[in-house]
Amino acid sequence: MRRNFMLALALTAAISVSSAAAASDALPSWRDGKTKQAILQFVKQATTKGGPKFVPPSERIAVFDNDGTLWAEQPMYFQAFFIFDRIKALAPQHPEWKDKEPFASVLKGDIKTALAGGEKALLEMAMATHAGMTTEEFEKIVSDWISTAKHPKTGRIYTEMVYQPMLEVLAYLRANGFKTFIVSGGGIEFMRPWAEKFYGVPPEQVVGSSIKTKYEIHDGKPVIVRLPELNFIDDKEGKPVGIQQHIGRRPVMAFGNSDGDFQMLEWTTGGKGPRFGMILHHTDAEREWAYDRESHIGKLAKGLDEASAKGWTVVSMKDDWKTVFPTEK
Amino acid sequence: MRRNFMLALALTAAISVSSAAAASDALPSWRDGKTKQAILQFVKQATTKGGPKFVPPSERIAVFDNDGTLWAEQPMYFQAFFIFDRIKALAPQHPEWKDKEPFASVLKGDIKTALAGGEKALLEMAMATHAGMTTEEFEKIVSDWISTAKHPKTGRIYTEMVYQPMLEVLAYLRANGFKTFIVSGGGIEFMRPWAEKFYGVPPEQVVGSSIKTKYEIHDGKPVIVRLPELNFIDDKEGKPVGIQQHIGRRPVMAFGNSDGDFQMLEWTTGGKGPRFGMILHHTDAEREWAYDRESHIGKLAKGLDEASAKGWTVVSMKDDWKTVFPTEK
Repeated sequence: MRRNFMLALALTAAISVSSAAAASDALPSWRDGKTKQAILQFVKQATTKGGPKFVPPSERIAVFDNDGTLWAEQPMYFQAFFIFDRIKALAPQHPEWKDKEPFASVLKGDIKTALAGGEKALLEMAMATHAGMTTEEFEKIVSDWISTAKHPKTGRIYTEMVYQPMLEVLAYLRANGFKTFIVSGGGIEFMRPWAEKFYGVPPEQVVGSSIKTKYEIHDGKPVIVRLPELNFIDDKEGKPVGIQQHIGRRPVMAFGNSDGDFQMLEWTTGGKGPRFGMILHHTDAEREWAYDRESHIGKLAKGLDEASAKGWTVVSMKDDWKTVFPTEK
Repeated sequence: MRRNFMLALALTAAISVSSAAAASDALPSWRDGKTKQAILQFVKQATTKGGPKFVPPSERIAVFDNDGTLWAEQPMYFQAFFIFDRIKALAPQHPEWKDKEPFASVLKGDIKTALAGGEKALLEMAMATHAGMTTEEFEKIVSDWISTAKHPKTGRIYTEMVYQPMLEVLAYLRANGFKTFIVSGGGIEFMRPWAEKFYGVPPEQVVGSSIKTKYEIHDGKPVIVRLPELNFIDDKEGKPVGIQQHIGRRPVMAFGNSDGDFQMLEWTTGGKGPRFGMILHHTDAEREWAYDRESHIGKLAKGLDEASAKGWTVVSMKDDWKTVFPTEK
């Protein structure tokens, strides 16, 4: 009897240790510390039935910015490199681009001049390269590019520049009954072809910027054609709007890295009940990039100023992450 | 040895019988026959790993029209009754409506005259009643209405006029790893407050028509405000567009009842691999309504003409359904 009791105690202890270890092992690329604990604790409380911070499974919606939050975004959004590569690929069919800005500068390799026109120039190049084909044709173009194109600085394919610690957060949340959504300023159809394979996020859980499309019959076959007309910009105050349009309820967790994510975090954490907001601060010039207030890409100022008052967790890439990219493991 | 072999055989037989029974019991409100078999057979083949018609779990997307497919739609779309009730409720704040069509006729109870202006009049009334509040306020208005308002002919609350056989199809598909989506011409935010409770379809799996919204801060609190401006009409050729926007991949099963669903079925079944299209034909004047080619609501002509050539299954409500509404059970 006594022996059985001792055995039971020993087993119980072993089980507790092992489940604590399992929980902490869910985020092995995160250094132990306040930020890692904040994520683990929120999820533990959200899944503790009967506890004061329990979140019913149907409400477990977590939203993630993409550029700078799930993968790198320097020296330019990766979709901009895609646009430039498309311009080069399409140039033979557009002899007029040789004398037409911003295309002419892209073809000369002078990206700085090409981007001098700001957002308007980028949008013009996006429309010229992202429209005029069917959705299935565009999906193939993106899939081919993402599996071969390489980052100009690291020489890696872009999907090797996703953040290992964030992959662990995505998987950890899903293992705890959360639905994980991407809510990005990037093109919705630029992310969908590879988000499931690399992030585990299916197409129906990707929210992004979009152009208009049209249903047509081509040679007896139904197709959806991409039109050179803006439909929706999923950035800044557009992010809560995109969330409402696609998800239809307020998330309980939001992860971002720039002031473009401010409203998404504000909307998410402004609701009743348990809420979690996180800002990834790019502080690691050695392993990745260090930038915030003055950066032309991923500017982060308001978010840093208000994070503390709003109760958002600020992650320092340099201090909080053991590894940055999966290939370093 | 022989005895064990016989026992194994007997057990195997028992298991086969029991799983066949379970499969056929999944749709108890459907009469045995070709249409019921078509659904059961498609799902069985789609979930048979290694079989020629296997559909990987991530591709198991099924889309359902709402009005006339999941619940009734006569003598008018139920959302129209909601609009009329809202006009009556809001009339004290709009004294000008007494002399302004189509509002004046609604307030006099003359729906026929109110609707004489066709789609334009309905849209005007929708804008006047569906905009000007936050998304959370609108959600509460819809929730209150749907739990109390009653159908003028049956005297039942509207959620008692969902179709029991279709509830069984929804549950059966989900039990087999399908994600079920609503793709309706109705308002996306009119359906979301109750679709999860009554159909088991969460807000993020509802696609519908929408008005524009705007993110704002009211008294320090973030809100999303509904604007009196059309965003998207999710009907006819809009349905494949809405599917692409929200789901991002082509469904493998589609269920509709009117020519407004034609393009959704065409797009769904026009893809490669196993596809399933179903049209619910309203043939039951006694238990529900009988209508098709000449109906002002839910007109079905092209779908009937082309179903056979396109390989779509046509369900006759009268012949194929043992029960129509859940309350008859």
